[in-house]
Amino acid sequence: MLTKRERTRQSILDLAAALASEHGLASLSIGGLASTAEMSKSGLFAHFGSKEELQLATVDHAALIFRREVIEPAQSAPRGVARVWALLDGFLDYIERGVFAGGCFFATTSAEFKHRPGTVRDRIAEHLASWDAYLTRAVAQGQELGQIDTGTEARRIAFELKAFVHTAESHHELFGDARVFVDARDAVRDRIESLRPAREASNAAG
Amino acid sequence: MLTKRERTRQSILDLAAALASEHGLASLSIGGLASTAEMSKSGLFAHFGSKEELQLATVDHAALIFRREVIEPAQSAPRGVARVWALLDGFLDYIERGVFAGGCFFATTSAEFKHRPGTVRDRIAEHLASWDAYLTRAVAQGQELGQIDTGTEARRIAFELKAFVHTAESHHELFGDARVFVDARDAVRDRIESLRPAREASNAAG
Repeated sequence: MLTKRERTRQSILDLAAALASEHGLASLSIGGLASTAEMSKSGLFAHFGSKEELQLATVDHAALIFRREVIEPAQSAPRGVARVWALLDGFLDYIERGVFAGGCFFATTSAEFKHRPGTVRDRIAEHLASWDAYLTRAVAQGQELGQIDTGTEARRIAFELKAFVHTAESHHELFGDARVFVDARDAVRDRIESLRPAREASNAAG
Repeated sequence: MLTKRERTRQSILDLAAALASEHGLASLSIGGLASTAEMSKSGLFAHFGSKEELQLATVDHAALIFRREVIEPAQSAPRGVARVWALLDGFLDYIERGVFAGGCFFATTSAEFKHRPGTVRDRIAEHLASWDAYLTRAVAQGQELGQIDTGTEARRIAFELKAFVHTAESHHELFGDARVFVDARDAVRDRIESLRPAREASNAAG
């Protein structure tokens, strides 16, 4: 059970993550956030101390939301191709549902911080590396189960599949064209089908 | 032949595009740029008048550079698969050569402006739509020439191929891992091979 103080902190971070997904972390200010959250600046300062602490807390909060909305639902899918699909379909679903006001929080903030060395950049990169690792492990499990051909490295397959859903996100945020989600799901499905091992493919045909 | 005034303007815009590729367009200021370019603020103001005019001129200047570095070299390749490859290989090459200090100018600035409605956002979207259209037309020409299977729409194929090279760019800028360029080229080549029409494939085998 969260204390009142923790609940307040959560609400502030929900708001901060939504704002940062649209306009980036640099434009978050304790003053601006206090005014939007209808709190005193000193009240908000008591929670975060500095702009950098606020930014780091916002990044970690966004990672928890991403975990809850994309990773955890996929964990209930069977290992292998079903989980790979659940991760990528879940990612697109998370964009379509507008979990963050500005699309993927990590797309906005990684582009913003890519050339700003420091702890905020490192934290963003850490969470993105963890998403890459999770997706790669899911593909590797599909290979161990004989559902995905082992002729291509799991890392490379994960890169291709991730590329489809990330590019759909950025295209959608810029052009507002929802057809790109159909394209991305078709691309993911076709790529997974193309990687079905010959034996499994002939079983399916027989 | 450029006048001195035009040459000065070009140098300022080269600098502005490099800075914006790293840190975005919002952080460009006439004062800051004047100081980096060792010009007077009033001298720089005479070229651009307002921050928005400076931003628009920077976007258009970056588009000219992109055209010169990626589109024009590919125009010398034969139509069809060779030109599709030249565009995507050329895009990766443009990132590897560090044409802009911060990776792809349009990756940084489209993430920055995606939720800031206005003329700057519209101009960025226009240039990106033109890159999409150019790539889609190159794929469609490959289909007309019988080099690319027509079972999948040119638009969808262009989306997939673009996804590989754009994702390589963002991954490289964040993680500094050049292996991703190998992955992206392999992914593009394998996808193009997988789209070879049955007749052409059997000719090649024979």
